[in-house]
Amino acid sequence: MPHPQLSASGELKHLLTIEGLSKALIHNILDTARGFLGVNTRDVKKVPLLRGKSVFNLFFENSTRTRTTFEIAATRLSADVVNLNINTSSAAKGESLLDTIDNLVAMHADMFVVRHASSGAPFLIAEHVNRTRGEGVHVINAGDGRHAHPTQGLLDMYTIRHFKQDFTRLRVAIVGDVLHSRVARSDIHALTTLGVPEVRVIGPLTLLPSGLEQMGCQVYTDMKKGLKDVDVIIMLRLQNERMRGALLPSAQEYFKHYGLTQEKLALAKPDAIVMHPGPMNRGVEIESAVADGPQAVILEQVTFGIAVRMAVMSLLVASA
Amino acid sequence: MPHPQLSASGELKHLLTIEGLSKALIHNILDTARGFLGVNTRDVKKVPLLRGKSVFNLFFENSTRTRTTFEIAATRLSADVVNLNINTSSAAKGESLLDTIDNLVAMHADMFVVRHASSGAPFLIAEHVNRTRGEGVHVINAGDGRHAHPTQGLLDMYTIRHFKQDFTRLRVAIVGDVLHSRVARSDIHALTTLGVPEVRVIGPLTLLPSGLEQMGCQVYTDMKKGLKDVDVIIMLRLQNERMRGALLPSAQEYFKHYGLTQEKLALAKPDAIVMHPGPMNRGVEIESAVADGPQAVILEQVTFGIAVRMAVMSLLVASA
Amino acid sequence: MPHPQLSASGELKHLLTIEGLSKALIHNILDTARGFLGVNTRDVKKVPLLRGKSVFNLFFENSTRTRTTFEIAATRLSADVVNLNINTSSAAKGESLLDTIDNLVAMHADMFVVRHASSGAPFLIAEHVNRTRGEGVHVINAGDGRHAHPTQGLLDMYTIRHFKQDFTRLRVAIVGDVLHSRVARSDIHALTTLGVPEVRVIGPLTLLPSGLEQMGCQVYTDMKKGLKDVDVIIMLRLQNERMRGALLPSAQEYFKHYGLTQEKLALAKPDAIVMHPGPMNRGVEIESAVADGPQAVILEQVTFGIAVRMAVMSLLVASA
Repeated sequence: MPHPQLSASGELKHLLTIEGLSKALIHNILDTARGFLGVNTRDVKKVPLLRGKSVFNLFFENSTRTRTTFEIAATRLSADVVNLNINTSSAAKGESLLDTIDNLVAMHADMFVVRHASSGAPFLIAEHVNRTRGEGVHVINAGDGRHAHPTQGLLDMYTIRHFKQDFTRLRVAIVGDVLHSRVARSDIHALTTLGVPEVRVIGPLTLLPSGLEQMGCQVYTDMKKGLKDVDVIIMLRLQNERMRGALLPSAQEYFKHYGLTQEKLALAKPDAIVMHPGPMNRGVEIESAVADGPQAVILEQVTFGIAVRMAVMSLLVASA
Repeated sequence: MPHPQLSASGELKHLLTIEGLSKALIHNILDTARGFLGVNTRDVKKVPLLRGKSVFNLFFENSTRTRTTFEIAATRLSADVVNLNINTSSAAKGESLLDTIDNLVAMHADMFVVRHASSGAPFLIAEHVNRTRGEGVHVINAGDGRHAHPTQGLLDMYTIRHFKQDFTRLRVAIVGDVLHSRVARSDIHALTTLGVPEVRVIGPLTLLPSGLEQMGCQVYTDMKKGLKDVDVIIMLRLQNERMRGALLPSAQEYFKHYGLTQEKLALAKPDAIVMHPGPMNRGVEIESAVADGPQAVILEQVTFGIAVRMAVMSLLVASA
Repeated sequence: MPHPQLSASGELKHLLTIEGLSKALIHNILDTARGFLGVNTRDVKKVPLLRGKSVFNLFFENSTRTRTTFEIAATRLSADVVNLNINTSSAAKGESLLDTIDNLVAMHADMFVVRHASSGAPFLIAEHVNRTRGEGVHVINAGDGRHAHPTQGLLDMYTIRHFKQDFTRLRVAIVGDVLHSRVARSDIHALTTLGVPEVRVIGPLTLLPSGLEQMGCQVYTDMKKGLKDVDVIIMLRLQNERMRGALLPSAQEYFKHYGLTQEKLALAKPDAIVMHPGPMNRGVEIESAVADGPQAVILEQVTFGIAVRMAVMSLLVASA
């Protein structure tokens, strides 16, 4: 059975997960994004590619930051954007998820950007619109549970390619709460697909899921060993609710072992770049001197993220 | 005294209620809507009719679904839409409803789409703008208390005309919680105005208001008798708070007697259509097999609803 | 050290406070606003000056009314507006204010409209973007704590100039809760800069801050004496939380002494105008007969406010 995000001819119809995307398709998205980067620095930051299209931000869990990036991307493509915070509306009235989708499809929606606390919800929506009348409707996963956050993965790849060019000669470390991170999963899939020979995962055992080796990673619990000679460091966000739970003694203890300090950063290659998906917990997973230092490319990630989302949206619409 | 929704020359200035609209005026709205249906399937779903107009969605009670339909309609007419959730703003600061309206009129608003828990609030607003300086401002009632929901009524008429053409040979049944339904009131007014000879209202006595006969309806408490040979079935939503109150024994009991099942549907004409204003309570007022079955036109109602709202907005602005 | 709101050449780069703006600069803003007044009465209320610009409404405290005025102003300049209610997003996730700003700057924001409960927050943001990469980003203070509300101050000056022309021959009274009012502070700075020879401040001692004389004001606790022969009366809003606190006996008592009634208004010049920043507490700081009477210019203030905000936005962008 073909993956619901690909059309019969292999074109990207929805973006649900990086898992299963070919190396060529990922590079095609990144190449397209490079073209959009310039739109964002123009005097008039707008191209008419999605003019008259209706993009719905369907946020079943609140994330102003992610919603904003998609709203900006869609607006700069000239789309009409409608924000729906679904907690407070039909869901509360007992309407089923798929009835809500059917309704919006009947309004001639063109694109759903879906954020949901449950893994698989965007997948369910995409399968449903494929199966029913939603022929021309495209679904973008903007984060589902612990499962995937593919546009974040793609912008991370854009950032690495921008600064390091050749994926096949890199050592990349992903550090922190991998267990609860949809970003980590998306990044690992992308990195291995793009040919990164060494993907290291660093964190306390309580925050590392099983199966990392099968995904092609090397596992480290000692950050100093794990950072040795890496080219790229991807720090993960430690969510507040983890800081005082059964899995971790305290935020201070976490910082001592897994916070990225200048001292630990010195173990990586001198030209290593430091990434973070944001929002950062300064003093928990990363020291301010590093976050604001010359090796950090965290704000470049944000800039590239707009271009990557514009690229994904325009490719999806072009595939129709 | 003329109705505040009509100008001296009989043009529609506001849309507050279907009550009092002439047959010709209703058909004019439906004819205009037919023209807009095509806009929604174009590649660029936009016409410039309301370009540079300021449409305010004034929602004094939350309804993401209804707000979305008006936002989409206004956007496809190229209007600028501002969403105001009034619970959390000036109302909380003690500003009176009419002071809020005066302020927005002073910003040169062109249109207010008003949703309010109190019957008559949109009427009050329309009278106020007629009386004061709000010359060119138009008010659309997007649902007020138990009173009216005229755009829902109009889209229901559009749907019936689309599938059945001639109103004057129809038997229409409205089923469920008529007592609390603004949709039912709007539909009854529209159906009788358009010449439907037989409007049946079906429900438990506790959910039927008095005065239905005077409105031209036949009342049934036995759904099987009521559905006999009808052409159109309009199911109403049973609100959650009714399901366990003094008026009803339980949702299960309700479904048994008034839920639309395939079995009960078989009593209607073979080509009867099934309508529902949404959101549906599957298994309460309607069985999934019917909701998703070949006679259901529930999603067509949604599609027509966008075109009807575009029609109303464009006619109001043209009347200025 | 130059003020962060002015460029090296003295152009307005941000609008943070009226304090320190020259008379010429204020008149330039008001002259520009006059040009925009006509846009708001056109059939198509739109000019393309900010087309393709990204304006972010950063509201760290809720104010639908103020947010709406800026959204309308930006939209009529053809900007793309993104509304961010920051309480519920990154701030809750523990991201620092300046990290949020850096992120939005990295998305190539053009303008931040900032509302914040803390005095100085917009100033902090403007200094930060001046210092870092946010070269082309402009900050507008939409109200910070008790400190300033410069666009309200400017629209008040526009209103006074419109009705009274010459500032240098006026007696202006500001009445009410000056202690907690950012509007009063902005107005006093503007009035003295524009050459108003007599600025009176009227209120109970508990609601008057110290230092008013040094700002060039005359202080009155007796409203009847204070209103004698004034040309302009600016009423301030009494916030609900003050009405039953340590500073005031009751709303009724306040109205008796400091509420503007027709009787008290008669003490001012016959052609005196009555202003109020809204939302009004009718029967607390102002009588309805006055609020709706021929001397009130409260709704004109709202109309001028849109034009003034359009003027400020267009001047900031032109200064880049």
